[in-house]
Amino acid sequence: MQPHIQFKPESNELHLLDQRLLPRTEEWFVCRNMDDIIFALKEMVIRGAPAIGVTAAYGCCIAAGNADPSSSHWVTDLDRQLTELAQARPTAVNLQWAVNLMRETWNVRPDIQLGELHRMWIAQAEELHRQDDKINREMGRHGAALLQNGDTVMTHCNAGALATGAYGTALGVIRAAVESGKRIHVLANETRPFLQGARLTAYELAQDEIPVTVCCDNAVGLLMAKGMVQAVVVGADRVAANGDAANKIGTYTVAVLAKRHNIPFYVAVPFSTIDFATASGEDIPIEERTPLEVTHIQDRQITPDEVPVLNFAFDVTPAELITALITEKGVIKPGELRNFKS
Amino acid sequence: MQPHIQFKPESNELHLLDQRLLPRTEEWFVCRNMDDIIFALKEMVIRGAPAIGVTAAYGCCIAAGNADPSSSHWVTDLDRQLTELAQARPTAVNLQWAVNLMRETWNVRPDIQLGELHRMWIAQAEELHRQDDKINREMGRHGAALLQNGDTVMTHCNAGALATGAYGTALGVIRAAVESGKRIHVLANETRPFLQGARLTAYELAQDEIPVTVCCDNAVGLLMAKGMVQAVVVGADRVAANGDAANKIGTYTVAVLAKRHNIPFYVAVPFSTIDFATASGEDIPIEERTPLEVTHIQDRQITPDEVPVLNFAFDVTPAELITALITEKGVIKPGELRNFKS
Repeated sequence: MQPHIQFKPESNELHLLDQRLLPRTEEWFVCRNMDDIIFALKEMVIRGAPAIGVTAAYGCCIAAGNADPSSSHWVTDLDRQLTELAQARPTAVNLQWAVNLMRETWNVRPDIQLGELHRMWIAQAEELHRQDDKINREMGRHGAALLQNGDTVMTHCNAGALATGAYGTALGVIRAAVESGKRIHVLANETRPFLQGARLTAYELAQDEIPVTVCCDNAVGLLMAKGMVQAVVVGADRVAANGDAANKIGTYTVAVLAKRHNIPFYVAVPFSTIDFATASGEDIPIEERTPLEVTHIQDRQITPDEVPVLNFAFDVTPAELITALITEKGVIKPGELRNFKS
Repeated sequence: MQPHIQFKPESNELHLLDQRLLPRTEEWFVCRNMDDIIFALKEMVIRGAPAIGVTAAYGCCIAAGNADPSSSHWVTDLDRQLTELAQARPTAVNLQWAVNLMRETWNVRPDIQLGELHRMWIAQAEELHRQDDKINREMGRHGAALLQNGDTVMTHCNAGALATGAYGTALGVIRAAVESGKRIHVLANETRPFLQGARLTAYELAQDEIPVTVCCDNAVGLLMAKGMVQAVVVGADRVAANGDAANKIGTYTVAVLAKRHNIPFYVAVPFSTIDFATASGEDIPIEERTPLEVTHIQDRQITPDEVPVLNFAFDVTPAELITALITEKGVIKPGELRNFKS
């Protein structure tokens, strides 16, 4: 797949393949200022914890590039913009993690000139983007060993190239298994309401010619009961210190069913998604999003006018249901997280 | 709600409120011959096991009314049409049950004249329709006692007025609880792919001013984990002799989650849905429907062109996950079915 996050240093722009329109329309959303970046995150032009982190890092660069060095308050302005950016979405910890990384390099050089800060941040954001790819590939290598030739692997939501800098977490594991010569068939849960599975996972796997079949979220139980699933691999938006994992709404359901059917349930996450400051899943904030995602599909209204809807965007899978975390440092049991520091 | 199945003896027509278009468009689909009836069943102009049974009974009347008494082969023609009708959909046993009832009254009078058969069947179909309503209300009375004032009750798919002759099985229980003065809030799972919950359950409860909130199927686990659900009531398309229940895809998932969270899981079914000839859920045929239900929502395509989909329409909930069956004969444990005969 082509790179879907493209920073243009010459114009200080971030070009994002607009994920609201995939798979039928490939259109680029151009971010020229922090408002654009925050819009892109909130409206899910781009989503997925690691991709949110990469986008946020470039967002800092764009804000710095737009700041006016002759203004007496560019420092407070920029600081305020970073604070707003970090709050654009609540659940994925990579957003705060990336903004904090950028802020730290600034903090150690409080007297830095704006132009130099801009250049320094660009180098840092590009390195973070490269590292994301490298880390995903390491996770892929570790995770691929868990999948057998001929396996059908279920995934929920999109934890692929489109959710990361380039390679994918859960789909990175699948890509690595395929690259190592294994035949893998992917079952992509469509993942209502935003349909990341039907739209994004199906799109990027089809682009890479990895066999994928889409099913409704409702089919998960039946497909497992029929013996059609050998493993589940998903990503996460935040893993707490005890191994509980927040991920796209419906993930918990998949994990409960996997447990019942003795199917291994893997969560593929870089360490940047592990939040050692959050003790357990109960402490992870769960975003509620606009009812329009449920009441409408594209521009078509499906529910009656007067009926309210609930639209929680994430749920928490307790550590006891997670067979292992697949990280760049290896495959580890959720309970072993206590042996690591962030 | 207005009667959604209206037989017109004067014109030998069946008028069905078209469930493909609800909730935004209220349009009547007129069946004038057996092809129309079979189309309406296959394309889900009407669906829901008891409603399918009522529709099939009227379908026999229409076929008899259209037959030519001067033809030497009206008997074999009509017989063939009944056989085709019984095969229109495989999972809901009420279809075969209703056609068999009509066939039996014909069988005991093999020499009956066509005009008389037509009149006899109309009386029989209208009685079956009235009985369906009466039985639903009895089920409602038995089931209402299981719900507490203030409960939030989750339901999956639509087992309401629109799925029956008039009152509903699962929603009949909720209606009866509300009519008895209890405050009940309904959580309607949207029920992909056909969206019976978002479209039909939301529509008919809103019409009756029973509070209803729609959620994505993916939210079931989270809502239960948050303690937001006090009971689940669903319908079924076929219950096997051992108490296993086939119902809309996703029901099994809801049952597994309810068990984990110690939430009672009730299946509301008339005895006409209990198939004593089928030993267990494994023997119930599961319909696979057109991929278009998954790839498209209304006329909007959501998946990439080249990606296949799976579309199983039903799954089986094993008896061990069912707290009780709510029937017109009372509330019974699935294991107690062996004490009954059909």
